[in-house]
Amino acid sequence: MKYMNACFLWLSIWTVATTQAHAQTIQLRSPDHHLKLNAVIAANGGLTYELHRKGIAVVKPSVLGFVLSRPEVRLDQFELLRVDSSLVDNTWKPLWGEVSTIRNFYTEVKLSLRQKTSPGIRLNVVFRLFNDGMGLRYEFPEQPGFVHFTVKDELTAFSLAGDHKAFWIPGDFDSNEYSYQTSRLSEIDATKAAAQEKDIAVTAVIGPHSVQTPLMMKSGNGLYINVHEAALINYPALNLTLDPASLTLQATLVPDVTGNKAWLQTPFSTPWRTVIVSDMATEILASKLILNLNAPPPADDYSWIKPQKFLGVWWEMHVGKATWQMAGGKHGATTDNTKRYIDFASRHGFDGVLVEGWNAGWEDWFGNWKEEVFDFVTPYPDYDLQELTAYARSKGVKLIMHHETSGSVTNYERRLDTAYRFMKYHGMETVKTGYVGKIIPRGEHHDGQWMVNHYNRVAEKTRSYRIMLDAHEPVHPTGLHRTFPNWMANEAARGSEFNNAPTLGITPEHTTILPFTRLMGGPMDFTPGLFHMQLNQFDPARSTRVRTTLAKQLALYVTMYSPLQMAADLPENYEQYPDAFQFIKDVAVDWDDTRILEAEPGDYITIARKAKGTTSWFLGAITDENARELNVKLDFLDDAVTYEATVYQDAPGADWDHHPELYQIRQVKVTRKSQLKVPLAPGGGCAVALRKIK
Amino acid sequence: MKYMNACFLWLSIWTVATTQAHAQTIQLRSPDHHLKLNAVIAANGGLTYELHRKGIAVVKPSVLGFVLSRPEVRLDQFELLRVDSSLVDNTWKPLWGEVSTIRNFYTEVKLSLRQKTSPGIRLNVVFRLFNDGMGLRYEFPEQPGFVHFTVKDELTAFSLAGDHKAFWIPGDFDSNEYSYQTSRLSEIDATKAAAQEKDIAVTAVIGPHSVQTPLMMKSGNGLYINVHEAALINYPALNLTLDPASLTLQATLVPDVTGNKAWLQTPFSTPWRTVIVSDMATEILASKLILNLNAPPPADDYSWIKPQKFLGVWWEMHVGKATWQMAGGKHGATTDNTKRYIDFASRHGFDGVLVEGWNAGWEDWFGNWKEEVFDFVTPYPDYDLQELTAYARSKGVKLIMHHETSGSVTNYERRLDTAYRFMKYHGMETVKTGYVGKIIPRGEHHDGQWMVNHYNRVAEKTRSYRIMLDAHEPVHPTGLHRTFPNWMANEAARGSEFNNAPTLGITPEHTTILPFTRLMGGPMDFTPGLFHMQLNQFDPARSTRVRTTLAKQLALYVTMYSPLQMAADLPENYEQYPDAFQFIKDVAVDWDDTRILEAEPGDYITIARKAKGTTSWFLGAITDENARELNVKLDFLDDAVTYEATVYQDAPGADWDHHPELYQIRQVKVTRKSQLKVPLAPGGGCAVALRKIK
Repeated sequence: MKYMNACFLWLSIWTVATTQAHAQTIQLRSPDHHLKLNAVIAANGGLTYELHRKGIAVVKPSVLGFVLSRPEVRLDQFELLRVDSSLVDNTWKPLWGEVSTIRNFYTEVKLSLRQKTSPGIRLNVVFRLFNDGMGLRYEFPEQPGFVHFTVKDELTAFSLAGDHKAFWIPGDFDSNEYSYQTSRLSEIDATKAAAQEKDIAVTAVIGPHSVQTPLMMKSGNGLYINVHEAALINYPALNLTLDPASLTLQATLVPDVTGNKAWLQTPFSTPWRTVIVSDMATEILASKLILNLNAPPPADDYSWIKPQKFLGVWWEMHVGKATWQMAGGKHGATTDNTKRYIDFASRHGFDGVLVEGWNAGWEDWFGNWKEEVFDFVTPYPDYDLQELTAYARSKGVKLIMHHETSGSVTNYERRLDTAYRFMKYHGMETVKTGYVGKIIPRGEHHDGQWMVNHYNRVAEKTRSYRIMLDAHEPVHPTGLHRTFPNWMANEAARGSEFNNAPTLGITPEHTTILPFTRLMGGPMDFTPGLFHMQLNQFDPARSTRVRTTLAKQLALYVTMYSPLQMAADLPENYEQYPDAFQFIKDVAVDWDDTRILEAEPGDYITIARKAKGTTSWFLGAITDENARELNVKLDFLDDAVTYEATVYQDAPGADWDHHPELYQIRQVKVTRKSQLKVPLAPGGGCAVALRKIK
Repeated sequence: MKYMNACFLWLSIWTVATTQAHAQTIQLRSPDHHLKLNAVIAANGGLTYELHRKGIAVVKPSVLGFVLSRPEVRLDQFELLRVDSSLVDNTWKPLWGEVSTIRNFYTEVKLSLRQKTSPGIRLNVVFRLFNDGMGLRYEFPEQPGFVHFTVKDELTAFSLAGDHKAFWIPGDFDSNEYSYQTSRLSEIDATKAAAQEKDIAVTAVIGPHSVQTPLMMKSGNGLYINVHEAALINYPALNLTLDPASLTLQATLVPDVTGNKAWLQTPFSTPWRTVIVSDMATEILASKLILNLNAPPPADDYSWIKPQKFLGVWWEMHVGKATWQMAGGKHGATTDNTKRYIDFASRHGFDGVLVEGWNAGWEDWFGNWKEEVFDFVTPYPDYDLQELTAYARSKGVKLIMHHETSGSVTNYERRLDTAYRFMKYHGMETVKTGYVGKIIPRGEHHDGQWMVNHYNRVAEKTRSYRIMLDAHEPVHPTGLHRTFPNWMANEAARGSEFNNAPTLGITPEHTTILPFTRLMGGPMDFTPGLFHMQLNQFDPARSTRVRTTLAKQLALYVTMYSPLQMAADLPENYEQYPDAFQFIKDVAVDWDDTRILEAEPGDYITIARKAKGTTSWFLGAITDENARELNVKLDFLDDAVTYEATVYQDAPGADWDHHPELYQIRQVKVTRKSQLKVPLAPGGGCAVALRKIK
């Protein structure tokens, strides 16, 4: 035994003798001592942990361990070999982000364990406590006789202290594009919720009590609790299955085609399992815990990575003005139409133009589990890429590449190098990938280990090609944009395109939940900025509509963080509202500072951000289907500076259902002493640009 | 109905009325009228075919059709829409091969059919009759409402006319490296045969009555019958399952991970199902039917493709002198050792030196279903590729690349371009690939549709890089070396390396069966030329041995056709027998003409070949475990020319078991009037080089 009963500032270890044996408890405290984590090795070797915040249980005693299929053993009874602990406090600067400096401040304890039964596998469990939450991971160190191993199940559990209110989507191996549900934990019925969905391309629902992470919860005694994972590398995604009786969430990993979860080799560390907790919802949104649990990128020159705003030949396909495919006479990605977007982007100062449907294959791309679909280098004959490359260059705009894989990932993988060389040859530096369809290799899921490795491989390869990446339909993000700073955004949730989905669409509250769930893992390419809410513009039969006000669409550029922000609507729709469009033109996409002013999941969010390298601030406030009054102090503004605030707000009578496009713009001088009071319409919002005037 | 009762020289159509309906028979005759094929559409729409040779049944009435899983239908009842027929007679010149000119002479009938039941799928069946056999294939033409479809089972059957003697290996989804069995059809027990095998890396035995193609049979009434397939493209490999009661062989396709067999889209043509038949075994070996059923290559410059002989840092790993891996101090692929091989190759006029174990990863390459094994571009530190590239060039020798995938094909596919560019950069123009291990994508088999597409993709990509290809552990060849003339050889059977396998090894008769089975589909990289038969040279504990005489090893260079021929043994072993080694140095690898002088599967084979562009002939004769006398006329020799024949033969007292290395060399003048009489030892053989002297 290389440890002893000890008590550091942040660590205590004690032993409780029983008649037969003794239980050992290792207690870790967060730097501010508000969080307390007990890891307990029971007399029989069983390993559990529990987490308290200021004396209130966040996670009750919960099991840790594994079931392996190779070797066929259950890893859940251990002897403790050694305890190591440390306190770390440093800061780092992200290449881009919500803030310019991030503090990484935590206590850590590592338990070196050995399985009590044969073959005596060694396993470490590492706990980190930040002031705002916990990370835990398993390490399988190199050891004789245990090299390759296969995970059948991970036993990690989160036993909750109450029947919390939960913001959840059904657990699923293939899709995270569900509409969020709000219910007590005990009321979760994922099967029923999933059955309402008709507009998701591919789903694989786990069962009635399984939900996805990030799972956001609010306890009866006022705690906000978020469960997710960080640094998902070479491992399947985490889902959680609830035992309604014990209110315990059990890790449920996405299986591969053989029913196993992960094929591994020592040394290996699992992703971190994270619990972020606070009595203030704003602190959940402000947490940098997940980013801190990811590794920094390898040292290199990343000056080529640029946050950007872009337009796209995209929404016009969603609303029936155009098609991705060339056949049929309504092809969107023509040379002329693309020039129109380039002209518009250039005129209004956008960095890029995404063009979907540029390449041959869309006539037969979906639904047939077909391997050879796109080759990523063959434009349609009416899309003159040479000409457009030159034209975009002359206008100071970059074309953004689109690689829809249709789920045929073997096909994409074997073409990656060719596809990226083709992009670079044509001056393109950003790619939007897509994974709509059943995965090939057949039998693999979007969120299994094989696909996780694929997404990460694409991130690494694009990084090596100096290409910025925006993945649609990938696994949920887990902060890997720290390690791959070129991996700037993901969809990985129900994005704005679902405004066009006939069945459930996007509810007014959806955007007040996403920052507490999907965005905990990283930036989302939500594609805000819709100005034309009735989607029958080109197809009178279409009854779908965007359920926000126009002002809320502007506010999303602040509340929905992404360094890649699309202005999703059509140029002609922006031209109808040039004064409102000015906000999208002005708003920054990279920030020195971010303040979460107020937030309640499912209800409202107000965020202010300071544009990178400037004195300008931007504020966004959104509400759900309920009207509300924004009433915040502007005390985040720079001292002794007067700002001109341009306030884009819902006009009287506006609401998402009847008059979404009623807005007004007013200008007012403010200082850090000012109070901002703005009425928010049902489904509405408010955007404010704050420019220093003296 | 676009046909009528008709009678061409090669085609008859007639209708037999029954009480309820009528059956239709389409009869096709081979150009020489010796083969007769009847295709019958019964009154109920059932489709069968039968094949006769000179009035003797070769295939009795046998079912044709499919079971599809998408759409879920059984395609086995048809109405006949149309009959088209033709007679084709042309010749073509292979880029390399056993003969300089090949005649493609056949009759053909195409039945255009429509499924009688809903949804009325259209399907064509095409029969071709050559004088030496039959090919049949299915075509799914483009048609409304039937685009993507999935094959659950192919119903094609071969109902045999008797309980033939069969030369077979167990049906298996992953390996064709079995030892051949000889038995009556009714005695086939593939499960039992497979259970004896201990030395094959990965197997997936189908069942007790399943065997692989090419299946060689001999009927009681003296017919030699070979069943195989040609042009295996985008489809799984064919196995055959015997119904012992009816002696019917049923097509058994290799499944994918979902249990389906093929994911297809119209227009699609299946591979050809082939039956080669003759009353002379020699004509089976001489058949060009399978090559003729493959497509010619696209027009291009193929002058870079060169038949070649090579040595390799390879056998020394098999006999325990060296290791593939660097760790352990016995690394074979060192700079110095490779130079030794280059020197030896250069001194003796070899074209290439294969180097296995050159690249990092061999320490942990097999048996763990591990995806990231080799990267195909990282030499071990003791293998200086820059230096060796220059050294090989200075010696006029080409290094041959080795790409062992360990079955991790996703990993290989994503690295193909990089790997081939790396090869070309280092002046390498030939690659030996390997597929030892369970396939990744996990759940796919070596011989399923996905892997068939992979092998063909590699053939196509290497062709585009002007790289010659030699695949080990691939699916059985089906004549695709016509379409991909750079795909010069395959292993795809139990090759010479199994001489080192402890359990069954290579029997003396094995090499008399391979040309009737495995080689029907194309050249085999058997790797003959072993001179040191007791394999305890470097490891006294090793009891395995090569079960041939040295003279037979020489004869294999003629009997075992390949345009890539290895001299498999170690330079130091060749240096012990410089006079015998002279034959390997002299023997050609490309031919203007080939004469199968005598042959009996399982017993003996004697072949003479005329070296390309010369007057020289080479003769090889091999026998099984029985001594025999070679006694052949040399009437194939050029007229009015006298040859000096150098005869490499078993010396008195030689036999494979006791004195394998006893040989003698004699020279004799011969003309086309001469008779060659040579005793063959048990497990022995004879090689003859015939050089014009006037």
